[in-house]
Amino acid sequence: MPSISKKGLHMPESPIRKLVPYAEKAHKEGKTVYYLNIGQPDIKTPSIALDAVKIHSLDILAYSRSEGSEDYRKKIANYYKKNDIEVTSDNIIVTTGGSEALLFAFGSIMDHDDEIIIPEPFYANYNGFSVASGVNVVPVISKIEDNFALPPIEEFEKHITSKTKAILICNPGNPTGYLYSKEEIKKLASIVKKYDLFLIADEVYREFVYDGISHYSILQESGLEQHAIVIDSVSKRYSMCGARIGYLVSKNKEFMRTALKFAQARLSPPTLAQIASEAALETPQGYFDEVREEYVKRRDLLIEELEKIPGVKVGKPKGAFYCIAELPVKNTDDFARWLLESFNYENNTVMVAPAAGFYSTPGVGLNQIRIAYVLNEDSLRIAVKTIAEALKIYKD
Amino acid sequence: MPSISKKGLHMPESPIRKLVPYAEKAHKEGKTVYYLNIGQPDIKTPSIALDAVKIHSLDILAYSRSEGSEDYRKKIANYYKKNDIEVTSDNIIVTTGGSEALLFAFGSIMDHDDEIIIPEPFYANYNGFSVASGVNVVPVISKIEDNFALPPIEEFEKHITSKTKAILICNPGNPTGYLYSKEEIKKLASIVKKYDLFLIADEVYREFVYDGISHYSILQESGLEQHAIVIDSVSKRYSMCGARIGYLVSKNKEFMRTALKFAQARLSPPTLAQIASEAALETPQGYFDEVREEYVKRRDLLIEELEKIPGVKVGKPKGAFYCIAELPVKNTDDFARWLLESFNYENNTVMVAPAAGFYSTPGVGLNQIRIAYVLNEDSLRIAVKTIAEALKIYKD
Ligand SMILES: Cc1ncc(COP(=O)(O)O)c(C=O)c1O
Ligand SMILES: Cc1ncc(COP(=O)(O)O)c(C=O)c1O
Repeated sequence: MPSISKKGLHMPESPIRKLVPYAEKAHKEGKTVYYLNIGQPDIKTPSIALDAVKIHSLDILAYSRSEGSEDYRKKIANYYKKNDIEVTSDNIIVTTGGSEALLFAFGSIMDHDDEIIIPEPFYANYNGFSVASGVNVVPVISKIEDNFALPPIEEFEKHITSKTKAILICNPGNPTGYLYSKEEIKKLASIVKKYDLFLIADEVYREFVYDGISHYSILQESGLEQHAIVIDSVSKRYSMCGARIGYLVSKNKEFMRTALKFAQARLSPPTLAQIASEAALETPQGYFDEVREEYVKRRDLLIEELEKIPGVKVGKPKGAFYCIAELPVKNTDDFARWLLESFNYENNTVMVAPAAGFYSTPGVGLNQIRIAYVLNEDSLRIAVKTIAEALKIYKD
Repeated sequence: MPSISKKGLHMPESPIRKLVPYAEKAHKEGKTVYYLNIGQPDIKTPSIALDAVKIHSLDILAYSRSEGSEDYRKKIANYYKKNDIEVTSDNIIVTTGGSEALLFAFGSIMDHDDEIIIPEPFYANYNGFSVASGVNVVPVISKIEDNFALPPIEEFEKHITSKTKAILICNPGNPTGYLYSKEEIKKLASIVKKYDLFLIADEVYREFVYDGISHYSILQESGLEQHAIVIDSVSKRYSMCGARIGYLVSKNKEFMRTALKFAQARLSPPTLAQIASEAALETPQGYFDEVREEYVKRRDLLIEELEKIPGVKVGKPKGAFYCIAELPVKNTDDFARWLLESFNYENNTVMVAPAAGFYSTPGVGLNQIRIAYVLNEDSLRIAVKTIAEALKIYKD
């Protein structure tokens, strides 16, 4: 029998995936399962986006340009301008989700065995894209005690070798909800300039920023033009994850020329989804205000209720819709499974994401979980209550 | 300035791309340009597919399952059953075009520096996916004199090393139009079994088969279950290239488990396109009969007219909608550019794809072009006439 690649063996399973059979079983047993584990918002997609594909007049569903349709890219540039980011359509390649933008970025700047430094905990699929690209993730730990702020810049410096090609941050962060300050971005800027590295910022949650703070994009930092690569996506912004549209944004021409070759090889991003996404740019501001208000309410409720539970520690997220909570248990992998398999409170149970999968350093984050607050307040309240009751009786 | 990866430097440009500016200039100068260079059919998408997205009732455009929606995969299995191929939905992963299926297959079975043997000329983007995956293409030349039939099996055997992981064929072939016979498939089967290799068959043109011959899929060859990986796509079948839906099909469970991890990392294939593609499965047989009839007419006209031109050699394609023609010129790169830049016949000119980009061996195919017969008969007639007139006066 022919054998699988080493890459394929090392390719991580989704940290949530292994719990799915237990959730399905719990569901079959008649329990109500509250899903706090996934980044699929329950928010409605703007109707302007959904309607756009209903009124299309295509008679051939043809490939678009590899870099995305010209009109759409111009409108995206305009979106950035409104957000105080000066880019042109030439600085934008439309990709199949932020996921593909990450893959193109990795391929364009790193070879086999090269290294990318990422503050952990980080979006678990960065591991997958690294394995697929044959590169190594070098983690720098950020701590729950610091609310997951940027680790001291010396920590990054310590890990830079001749193989280091880039630093990758997620801002605001999944799974931490942390929003980097202007000062933190400037610190990162100085180090990537000093060592001639790329700085990739995954800004897919850029509009999910709370408490009146504003988001500072690496594209706003002057002098960083040749270093900055932004990953963006319509998935969360317009609650249209299934569209599979994202963007790669950079002013580095050589990088963009290279990424375009990757884009050409796969021909084009999805055409119908571009129609929907182009229309989504016309979403009225009121939609975002409502969504933001909703997430703030959920976050406040979630944090307040979690902090009431003895032994639970939680960082207050300033953005995105996730938080990391530390629980008074040894191993959240076991706890999460036990919740689904062996526990219910008033017939309810909860599916959470064990946080170890968001760390690259073995043994770290074992007592943490990631919670996505993608459920409404009533559901969140029941879910947290269920966790609280579970912790009362759970034995490691 | 941070530097691009070696991978990025080696990533090939699309063999057609460099001619685009010349085509645009010709167009601006008022010439009518006939595009024989691209695989974007002019055939209408079945209305049943286009209408399906018009009547959707989604209010959240959510991620689908990473392997594609359950219902859709069951229906795909049914499609194969109707085509005498026994697979279940578990043997199918829905991908973002056949392109992504190729990328997942390469990643799942090959590591850095591994080798894949491909009869050339081959679909140019196999090069791109190989570079992106860090693996090496080992070409085996097939010849226009043999109509691009399978090269002698000893030629493959000669190139097998400890790094060889797979043989990749395209059946029917882009750019050759060649359809492998059952006997040729059996020869390939015996060699992959002997050396424990995977056999990847890109069958995206499986329904474009002419002259009453039937397509023999590697999935129909018994004993090949652990070796066979099929790449498929809705792009050409339903003229819906912009949907970006394809499939990876295999009965090798370990391979499928591995490919699924790649699929999970990128979350999901496009949701709207899955709705359209699922509906496309209900396309009435009459649509395909008409399309096939149309392509046969075009092919016959094209070959007949090409063969009238002195010094032109062309293999008669038995499938797909491409053919390779050998021209009495030294370098078709120069010729193709000259056609656009300096030539017109009754104000018409033609864009063709120089065939060197479809070969991996340097210096081969320099006097060949690929023609896609994706234009109607009247246009094809004018286009070939234009090439004939051009060859009368062209000087190398
Ligand atoms: C931080 C981050 N980056 C990228 C992605 C990829 O999203 P998509 O491919 O849907 O744009 C996600 C999705 O959850 C994410 O959380
Ligand atoms: C032989 C072959 N394989 C794969 C593809 C990829 O097509 P898609 O990604 O649109 O399914 C093409 C497209 O032209 C092709 O010709």
